[in-house]
Amino acid sequence: MILCDIGNTSYHFLDGTTSYKKDTKNFNPQDIKEKVYFISVNAAIKEKLNSLENWIDLSAFIDMKEYYETMGIDRVFALQTSQNAVIIDAGSAITVDILKEGMFMGGFIYPGMKAMSKTYANISPALEYSFNFDVDLDIMPKNSQDAITYGFVKTLYSEVISHNMPVILTGGDALEFKKVFKDAKVDEELIFSGMKKIITKAKLC
Amino acid sequence: MILCDIGNTSYHFLDGTTSYKKDTKNFNPQDIKEKVYFISVNAAIKEKLNSLENWIDLSAFIDMKEYYETMGIDRVFALQTSQNAVIIDAGSAITVDILKEGMFMGGFIYPGMKAMSKTYANISPALEYSFNFDVDLDIMPKNSQDAITYGFVKTLYSEVISHNMPVILTGGDALEFKKVFKDAKVDEELIFSGMKKIITKAKLC
Repeated sequence: MILCDIGNTSYHFLDGTTSYKKDTKNFNPQDIKEKVYFISVNAAIKEKLNSLENWIDLSAFIDMKEYYETMGIDRVFALQTSQNAVIIDAGSAITVDILKEGMFMGGFIYPGMKAMSKTYANISPALEYSFNFDVDLDIMPKNSQDAITYGFVKTLYSEVISHNMPVILTGGDALEFKKVFKDAKVDEELIFSGMKKIITKAKLC
Repeated sequence: MILCDIGNTSYHFLDGTTSYKKDTKNFNPQDIKEKVYFISVNAAIKEKLNSLENWIDLSAFIDMKEYYETMGIDRVFALQTSQNAVIIDAGSAITVDILKEGMFMGGFIYPGMKAMSKTYANISPALEYSFNFDVDLDIMPKNSQDAITYGFVKTLYSEVISHNMPVILTGGDALEFKKVFKDAKVDEELIFSGMKKIITKAKLC
């Protein structure tokens, strides 16, 4: 069984236990002849895949009324296997969603690491630093690099811990954020787990 | 007495009780013949003003050892008239500084409203919304506009209130943030007050 989570920049595949990525710019989905279960936040690719019989869109098996219309489908699938948690997907955007008794309570969107780094640099060349995830966020910063790291990370942290719930981290930057959310569980295949759960629930295989 | 707080995009003047701005791109400081007390985060303009006798740089009267070397001089002057407070200067960047017994305890830098709005739009056209400062931040969002507003504003709010101190708002977007920091005091002339205090202290006039 091949699973594929399609984003704005890449196709992320899971084939058995092997995970790999293909660039959306030059990958041709027709090259795969086997059945692929997919979700896509990329509207153009989703549209294209509709005409390929072996690409099965799992979003059709979700009741979006439990979420909201414009919510990214990757967020919805990341929520399928937990009951009580704050789920942080740290990618090009950072989505933070709250589940209580398996029900979606709402969530918010924060800029991802790369986007935020560019934002500071664009405001002023004096703020062009990489983030320092090893900074001690219990101390108010007294230098520019720590001041922007704190601004980016500690604000997010303060909001997340105010919910007083277990934290699950997924997405490409999960391990960076694990340095800050020390008690969080990292699950890099959370979306794939959600896809498997929906496949089983819908009796697709 | 004319005061001037120079930023990256404008000269902000206070002449008596009249405050006005001039664009850094086309304003010529030689047009003013009276004495002007100024601070400047704009290094190029600061350099240029060194050669004009009637422009007095107030940064010379600050002991930067109490702050840090690369700290914006506008932040330093905003801290001169308070004792115990979180001081938020909401401009192109949002600086958040903590004072205890008049001593600088450190601070952080967060992107301003315009910069952050652009950041979301650049991540995905699906996140291209204006912020909604009237949103109820006690409720987890279930739509995209509230999800980015919450991501921008509530994270900052949660961090700031965790310090459990009085909040003072200044800067161009102070009134927007007052909708969220409901107990905050707004002081749009905080930097000018700091400049006046240093002028008095240094017996400049």
